[in-house]
Amino acid sequence: MRKRLNDKQWFAPNGIWAAVFSWMLVAPVGAVAQDVDGWSGEDSAMVARIHAHTLGEGRCYEDLRVLCKDVGARLSGSQAADDAILWGAKVLEGIGAGTVRMQPVVVPHWERGGNERAWMRVDGGPQEPLRISALGGSVGTEGVMEGDVVVFRDFEALDSLGSDGLEGRIAFFNRPMDPLMINAGSAYGGAYEQRSRGAVEAAEHGGMAALVRSLTHALDTFPHTGGMRYDDAVGKVPAAAVSTVDARRISRLIADGHEVRVGMEMDCVLHGEKTQANVIAEWTGSEHPDRYIVVGGHLDSWDIGEGAHDDGAGIVQSIEVMRTLHALGYQPRHTLRVVLFINEENGNNGGKTYAQRAREKGEWHVAAVESDAGGDAPRGFSIDATDSATAAVRAWKEDFMDYGVGDMRRGGAGVDIGPLKQEEPAGKRPLMVGLRPNSQRYFDYHHSDRDIFENVHERELKLGAAALTSMVYLLDRLDYDSID
Amino acid sequence: MRKRLNDKQWFAPNGIWAAVFSWMLVAPVGAVAQDVDGWSGEDSAMVARIHAHTLGEGRCYEDLRVLCKDVGARLSGSQAADDAILWGAKVLEGIGAGTVRMQPVVVPHWERGGNERAWMRVDGGPQEPLRISALGGSVGTEGVMEGDVVVFRDFEALDSLGSDGLEGRIAFFNRPMDPLMINAGSAYGGAYEQRSRGAVEAAEHGGMAALVRSLTHALDTFPHTGGMRYDDAVGKVPAAAVSTVDARRISRLIADGHEVRVGMEMDCVLHGEKTQANVIAEWTGSEHPDRYIVVGGHLDSWDIGEGAHDDGAGIVQSIEVMRTLHALGYQPRHTLRVVLFINEENGNNGGKTYAQRAREKGEWHVAAVESDAGGDAPRGFSIDATDSATAAVRAWKEDFMDYGVGDMRRGGAGVDIGPLKQEEPAGKRPLMVGLRPNSQRYFDYHHSDRDIFENVHERELKLGAAALTSMVYLLDRLDYDSID
Repeated sequence: MRKRLNDKQWFAPNGIWAAVFSWMLVAPVGAVAQDVDGWSGEDSAMVARIHAHTLGEGRCYEDLRVLCKDVGARLSGSQAADDAILWGAKVLEGIGAGTVRMQPVVVPHWERGGNERAWMRVDGGPQEPLRISALGGSVGTEGVMEGDVVVFRDFEALDSLGSDGLEGRIAFFNRPMDPLMINAGSAYGGAYEQRSRGAVEAAEHGGMAALVRSLTHALDTFPHTGGMRYDDAVGKVPAAAVSTVDARRISRLIADGHEVRVGMEMDCVLHGEKTQANVIAEWTGSEHPDRYIVVGGHLDSWDIGEGAHDDGAGIVQSIEVMRTLHALGYQPRHTLRVVLFINEENGNNGGKTYAQRAREKGEWHVAAVESDAGGDAPRGFSIDATDSATAAVRAWKEDFMDYGVGDMRRGGAGVDIGPLKQEEPAGKRPLMVGLRPNSQRYFDYHHSDRDIFENVHERELKLGAAALTSMVYLLDRLDYDSID
Repeated sequence: MRKRLNDKQWFAPNGIWAAVFSWMLVAPVGAVAQDVDGWSGEDSAMVARIHAHTLGEGRCYEDLRVLCKDVGARLSGSQAADDAILWGAKVLEGIGAGTVRMQPVVVPHWERGGNERAWMRVDGGPQEPLRISALGGSVGTEGVMEGDVVVFRDFEALDSLGSDGLEGRIAFFNRPMDPLMINAGSAYGGAYEQRSRGAVEAAEHGGMAALVRSLTHALDTFPHTGGMRYDDAVGKVPAAAVSTVDARRISRLIADGHEVRVGMEMDCVLHGEKTQANVIAEWTGSEHPDRYIVVGGHLDSWDIGEGAHDDGAGIVQSIEVMRTLHALGYQPRHTLRVVLFINEENGNNGGKTYAQRAREKGEWHVAAVESDAGGDAPRGFSIDATDSATAAVRAWKEDFMDYGVGDMRRGGAGVDIGPLKQEEPAGKRPLMVGLRPNSQRYFDYHHSDRDIFENVHERELKLGAAALTSMVYLLDRLDYDSID
């Protein structure tokens, strides 16, 4: 005799198989005290609809496929970035929820150029190919350069050298991301300075170039690029990343007393500035058309890989916010802007320009939300706001837990929206929120040839889009006159 | 001038790059009211040490490599399962924290046999190869069988057929896992009955065989096997899984009015019973040697793939619990048992035997912990206990949130430890806890050729091991005389 199982009973078939299910039976432990400020019944129903719609009919994954495969890598200033801007505008216009416009932004135009090759020689032996990736903004090598490699774990280790202590040599900064930190983003932050400042430190001591260990926990053969900067007070020397596998090999050889020389040739060139754009879709609010909620990510990427996690994911999730709310027949109370920012990776001129224009116009941005931490499974939100605004958002914690995004912390919300805080348009601090996915895999891909569409998981991307949409909806429901 | 950054300052370098860091700055929002029953300072320090040790020196990932690559798939009754038992005992003995013994368990010995092939014909056309995987426990086809395919979304759809309505035909159960459910495990549970009961339903209506859509959200070409059962009241017909890609193709062809015939040949055989073993490492408690805390997973796997996530991950994490606590010089107050259970996949005889022996001896199991939901990033714990015991564990929620495992829910804790609840050794209900990792990717691999070592992420596996170890440590610190 077959027994019909309802939703609550499926875990209890007869016989030994009952056990198989037990781990899947999950239910909230129960409301706790601070839950009194949680979602209303109406809000709970809307968040449920948002998730069902996004998981069932969401198009962000297909959007990401097009952005990654048809447009591809799209560094600021490149033709591909122009293509991405046109693609973004077209997709946003297709939603039909508001007007779409371009906001001109002046961006740098750097290219790594045609030649990018390197080799190493151990104890004067033959050349062995070495895979490198010029750091974004690096000068070229002007032909071929070769020098002995000196390994440093941190900048302090340079202090004993005089101003010409690295003369004719290459500084190799090899400190790994700290594996003991729980959050991989924090570990990234702790090793980041080697990449951003390595060339300056090398030049200050007469070095001819800087090599940097890739910023990733993964032990693999992919170099990870990323931004770096120069200091006008010292000369500019080329800088490139090597993979963690090569970094380990080189440092072990040197530790064992071998002499390692590296040769490199890079044709990097900085073409000067170019005008590109932020893409802005604006959906006028019914109650407060002069108050703005922004949600966005950055459209530009580095010039290797496909910018799938960084930040194709945030772009397609932000677009999905407007598409889903429109499809569900929702009318925002505040004016909702989806902004596809340009130039986050090497200048943040998109974010700065947006905030500057907002201040000039006196626009009150009540809230700003960003997704720029990858497309992996969402876990929560990072809140950058006043105490009272933080408390208002944190009251949703237990409710969000049912959707897997109950990890609410104070912290930076996003690079692109960051300048809105500095500019404080209308003199008021916007309530800023960043989507926080699982960080463990993000740096495996980040800024490398591995950051491709295939490494984004469809359901995880969609769950992030649904969480982002829910957050924007809930922020639209807040009364900003009553929040400090 | 270079500025030294301490841990709290690294996010604020000068210049435009400050923005790059902002998303990585994370900090708890602040203690909340229920935090008063959270961890003591001593406990916080110990959990930090556990995480640092596991991430820095943990060996579970290397253990998993050996279990997957040297032992491989290890279905109950197989030689590989014997190998796994010996491997497990050796690794546990190597820790040196207690005594290791085998607990005999009678298990079924089923094999899929040498031939496993299938084909389909559309509208009487030529044979096209069709990839199948016999469900565990299925009978063979006794030569070749071929029949027309009839698609069903659920068992209700069979009701209109008489007892011979499927005569000479093959029932194909094609309901996908519900994509709208947030938790992939719940979606699995909702579609599971097709696999476990499909053959019985087909046979009840005279069908010659059952085909089942693989239980996964992934749209790919891998069939996913798994357990099924027969009903003595009806005949036994063969049952096999097809991939989601093939399921979609077959169902669309039939929906479009085409005739689809499937032929299949499977040599499955049930050899009868065999005696294998649970592996038990026992570390005597200093204060309550007669009270037991169990932590474990299951050593057996299905016979395809490598059983990496299911449940190699839980096995190596459970071993790591004892290794880490021993390495840190901790002496458990209660007797700690690491149990590598046998036969979870097709009988749960390991779990049943363990519980039965515990009841016979009157052992008081104060707590039982399991990891059997994969090696992906941990998110929290599932609690199966009395209200007061649940409250005691849930008091750690905010503290665990800092380690990414603050999602605490009531729910099943694990199949292997499940019978301890039914048996209630010593008449007291054990406090049962299951590790809950991200569920989104688990069924992409589950019970298929994709469940291999390469699809387990080192840091995520280690974070799970550290969370499991922390939970066992904290459970050891509880006073069970004061908990109902």
